[in-house]
Amino acid sequence: MEFLVRIETDLPDNLPVERRASLLAAEAQRGRELIADGRLLRIWRTPGRRANVSLYDARDATELHDLISSLPLWPWMSVRVEPLAVHPLELLDAD
Amino acid sequence: MEFLVRIETDLPDNLPVERRASLLAAEAQRGRELIADGRLLRIWRTPGRRANVSLYDARDATELHDLISSLPLWPWMSVRVEPLAVHPLELLDAD
Amino acid sequence: MEFLVRIETDLPDNLPVERRASLLAAEAQRGRELIADGRLLRIWRTPGRRANVSLYDARDATELHDLISSLPLWPWMSVRVEPLAVHPLELLDAD
Amino acid sequence: MEFLVRIETDLPDNLPVERRASLLAAEAQRGRELIADGRLLRIWRTPGRRANVSLYDARDATELHDLISSLPLWPWMSVRVEPLAVHPLELLDAD
Amino acid sequence: MEFLVRIETDLPDNLPVERRASLLAAEAQRGRELIADGRLLRIWRTPGRRANVSLYDARDATELHDLISSLPLWPWMSVRVEPLAVHPLELLDAD
Amino acid sequence: MEFLVRIETDLPDNLPVERRASLLAAEAQRGRELIADGRLLRIWRTPGRRANVSLYDARDATELHDLISSLPLWPWMSVRVEPLAVHPLELLDAD
Amino acid sequence: MEFLVRIETDLPDNLPVERRASLLAAEAQRGRELIADGRLLRIWRTPGRRANVSLYDARDATELHDLISSLPLWPWMSVRVEPLAVHPLELLDAD
Amino acid sequence: MEFLVRIETDLPDNLPVERRASLLAAEAQRGRELIADGRLLRIWRTPGRRANVSLYDARDATELHDLISSLPLWPWMSVRVEPLAVHPLELLDAD
Amino acid sequence: MEFLVRIETDLPDNLPVERRASLLAAEAQRGRELIADGRLLRIWRTPGRRANVSLYDARDATELHDLISSLPLWPWMSVRVEPLAVHPLELLDAD
Amino acid sequence: MEFLVRIETDLPDNLPVERRASLLAAEAQRGRELIADGRLLRIWRTPGRRANVSLYDARDATELHDLISSLPLWPWMSVRVEPLAVHPLELLDAD
Repeated sequence: MEFLVRIETDLPDNLPVERRASLLAAEAQRGRELIADGRLLRIWRTPGRRANVSLYDARDATELHDLISSLPLWPWMSVRVEPLAVHPLELLDAD
Repeated sequence: MEFLVRIETDLPDNLPVERRASLLAAEAQRGRELIADGRLLRIWRTPGRRANVSLYDARDATELHDLISSLPLWPWMSVRVEPLAVHPLELLDAD
Repeated sequence: MEFLVRIETDLPDNLPVERRASLLAAEAQRGRELIADGRLLRIWRTPGRRANVSLYDARDATELHDLISSLPLWPWMSVRVEPLAVHPLELLDAD
Repeated sequence: MEFLVRIETDLPDNLPVERRASLLAAEAQRGRELIADGRLLRIWRTPGRRANVSLYDARDATELHDLISSLPLWPWMSVRVEPLAVHPLELLDAD
Repeated sequence: MEFLVRIETDLPDNLPVERRASLLAAEAQRGRELIADGRLLRIWRTPGRRANVSLYDARDATELHDLISSLPLWPWMSVRVEPLAVHPLELLDAD
Repeated sequence: MEFLVRIETDLPDNLPVERRASLLAAEAQRGRELIADGRLLRIWRTPGRRANVSLYDARDATELHDLISSLPLWPWMSVRVEPLAVHPLELLDAD
Repeated sequence: MEFLVRIETDLPDNLPVERRASLLAAEAQRGRELIADGRLLRIWRTPGRRANVSLYDARDATELHDLISSLPLWPWMSVRVEPLAVHPLELLDAD
Repeated sequence: MEFLVRIETDLPDNLPVERRASLLAAEAQRGRELIADGRLLRIWRTPGRRANVSLYDARDATELHDLISSLPLWPWMSVRVEPLAVHPLELLDAD
Repeated sequence: MEFLVRIETDLPDNLPVERRASLLAAEAQRGRELIADGRLLRIWRTPGRRANVSLYDARDATELHDLISSLPLWPWMSVRVEPLAVHPLELLDAD
Repeated sequence: MEFLVRIETDLPDNLPVERRASLLAAEAQRGRELIADGRLLRIWRTPGRRANVSLYDARDATELHDLISSLPLWPWMSVRVEPLAVHPLELLDAD
C-alpha cells in the first residue's frame, strides 16, 4: 500500500556543527537504504523549505511508522501521513 | 489494518420522503452487513450532528474506499480517513 | 460514556536521558493500568508522529480529565477530547 | 454532566412564511420545555448572527444528542458540542 | 453583560517549584474573590488540557480586561473573549 | 462600549431587480439613521468585496444585536462581532 | 518539472444520467491519453472521497494549466497545485 | 501604491451560453483597458483553477475598490486584497 | 488612506525589569506622538490579551510600515494590516 | 517560469549585534545580485511585518529552491512558494 508523506525538519540552532553533519550524513544513508529496499518510492523537495514530500510503499500504517521513525532526524521532524488508494486509471493503464 | 473514518451526511432538502426513507433503510442494512463481516468494528454518533465516527478494518486504502463507497448514502457523504498504526501498549496488553 | 482522545507529546530536547527513560517507563505502566481498569479501551499510534489516538470509557468529562492528567507525561501533552454518542447501528448489532 | 453547545441555524430562503412561523413557534416551545426540565441550563445569542451558545445538562453524549435533535429546527442546524469538566474553583465555592 | 472566556495557561518548564506553587495558590484565591464578587459566574475545565472555559459578568470589555488581567497567572495565559447577548428564551423563562 | 463589526452580504442571484433596489435603498437609509443616532460611529468598505468593517457604540451585546438585526439586509448577512476595550493611550490622549 | 495535483470533483445532483455517464467516459479517456503522453505520471484515489492525488510532468505552470483544464470534468473540479523540486536523494539514487 | 489582488470567479452553471460568452468578452476588454491605463500592472493564472493573481497600482484602497468592481464578472468574484510596501532592495536597484 | 492594524506583543520572559519598564514607557511616548501627529486615529485593547486594534492614517503601505516599525516594541510584535476603503455611507453623512 | 514567494524572517533575539549586521548586509548584497541576474523580478515589503512578497523567474522549482536557499538568512526563513501560469490578458497585451 502506498502513502504520501510530508516531512518538515527543524534542527535546533544550537546543534554542534559536527553533530549536525553526522546526522545529515546518516539521514542520507538511511534514505538510500529505504530507496534500495523499495520502501521509499519517490521523494521531492518542497521548494524554499526544509521539507519534503515522499511516496512510501509499506504493508500498513504500523510498518510505515517503523520506516519513518528509523530516520535519524525523526526526533526533529513534523510528519503528516496520507493513505492512498489505487486509482482505476492506473489499472486500465496496466492492461 | 484499522482506519478511523469520519462521515458527515448532507441529504438534500428536496429529496422525496419515500426516497429518503428507503435510502436510510438501505444504509442501515449495509451498515449491519459491514459489522457482520468484521469490517465496521465500531461506530459512534457525533452528538448534535448528522455525522459519525467509525473504525474500519480493511486490507488497505483501496479496499477501504470500496467499503465506504458501497454505502447507499455515499453520494451525499463528506468523508475523511485517517490511518492507524498499532500502539505498543496493545501489544503488551495481548501478552 | 466513551470519548475519543488525541494526544501529541513533546518532550523537551534537554531532558536528561535517565529522566526520559523513567518517564516513558512510568507512562507505559500507567497505560497498562488504565487498560486493565477498563478505562483505556483502545489506543493507536498516529503513524509518523509522537502522537496517539485513544478511546476512553469514563463516567463524565471530569473523570476523563482525572484519567488523562494521571499520565506521567501529561505536563508535556497537548490533548483534544471528543465526546461520542451511541450509534443506533451498535444497538441493532446487540440484538 | 454539562456540555457547551453552539448552534447556527440556516433556514432556506424559500420556506413558506407560515411554515417558518410555525417552526419558530415550535422551536421556542421546545426550548421552554428543555429549560423547565433542567436540561437547557443557559442560552445566549451570538450577537449579529442567527446563532446561539447554550449550556446543557445531560447524562452523556447520547442523551445530549437526543435533546438537541428533538429541536424542531434541528434539520437546518449546524451544531458543535464541547464536553465540560468540573473546575476545582466551583467545588471550593460550594463549601 | 456576560462574556464567555477561554483561557489556556502555559507556565514555563523552568519555573521554580515554590514560585509555581505560590502562583497557583494566588490564582485560586483570586478566582474565589471573583466568584464572591459575582464577576466569575461559572468556570469549567476543558478536559485533558491546562485550560478552562468561564462565564464572566462585567460592565463592558474594559472592565472585563481589568478582571482577567488581575489573575496572577495572566502573564502566561492565552485568552479569547466572546461577547454574549441575552436570548429571548431566557426572558420568557423569567415570566 | 464599542464593537468592531464585520459584515459580508450575499444577496441571492435570483432576487428581482426592483426588490434588490428597494432593499439597498432601505439599507442605506437605516445606515444613515444609525449614524445620526451615534450608534454607527465609523464604516469602511473592504476593498474588492461586498463587505464592510464598522465601529458601533452600544450599551452591550444585546443592544448591538438589535442594531445589527435592524438592518434590512440582515437576513443575507454574515456578521462577526469583536468587543473592544478602552486603550490607556486614548485616556492619556484625553488629558 | 513535476507537480503534485489534488482534485476534488463535485458533479451537480441534477445532471442527467446519460450526460453524467458520457462525461465520466470522456474523463477516463482523457486520463488515459495524459498517461500515454507521459504527462500524468501517477494518480491515486483519496480513500472515501470523490477526489484524487496525481503527479504531473509539465514544462511549467502554464502547460500544467492547459493539461488540467483539458479534462472534461474540469468545470466541476476544485484543484490545488504544488510545485515539486528534485530531491538530492533521487540524484544519488540515479548514480 | 501597489496591491496584490487574488480573484476566484464562480459563474453559475445555469448561465445561458451567450450571456456567459458576452460576459467573458467584456471582462477581457475591461482587463485590456486596465492594463492600458497602467492600473493592472501584471496578471497571472493560478494553475488549475478559475482564479488569478494580479498586481494593481491605485491611489488608495478606495480607488482600488472602484477598479475591481468595474470588472463585468465582479458580481461572481471572491476577492482578497493585500497592500504592498516598497522594499528597500528596489530603491537600491533604482540607483 | 486608513488602515486597520492588529498588534500582538510578546515580550520575552527573561527581559530585565528595568529594560521592560523603559521599553513600555518609550512605547507609550511614541504612541502619544503618533496620536498627536494624526497618524494613529484610534486604538483599542483586545480584552484579555496583550494585543490591540488600531486605526492608522497613512499615505500608503510604505509610510504605514515606517510608522509601525517606529514603535519601540516592534521587534516583539506580530502585526497584521488591512487596507480600508471609504464607504458611501460616510460620504452621504458628510453632506 | 514565474513564482510568487512569501518569506517571513525570524532572527533569534540572542544573535550578536555584529553577526546580525553582517548577515543583513550579506542578505541585501545577495538580493541585489538576484535582481541583477534577472531572477528576482520584484520584491515588496509586507507592511508591519518582518516579511516580504517577491516574484522570481526560475527554470523550475529545483532552480527556485537553489535561488532561495542561497539567501544568507535562509536558515531563519519560513518560505511559501506559489507557481504562476501565464494569463491570456498578458499575451493579448503583447500583441
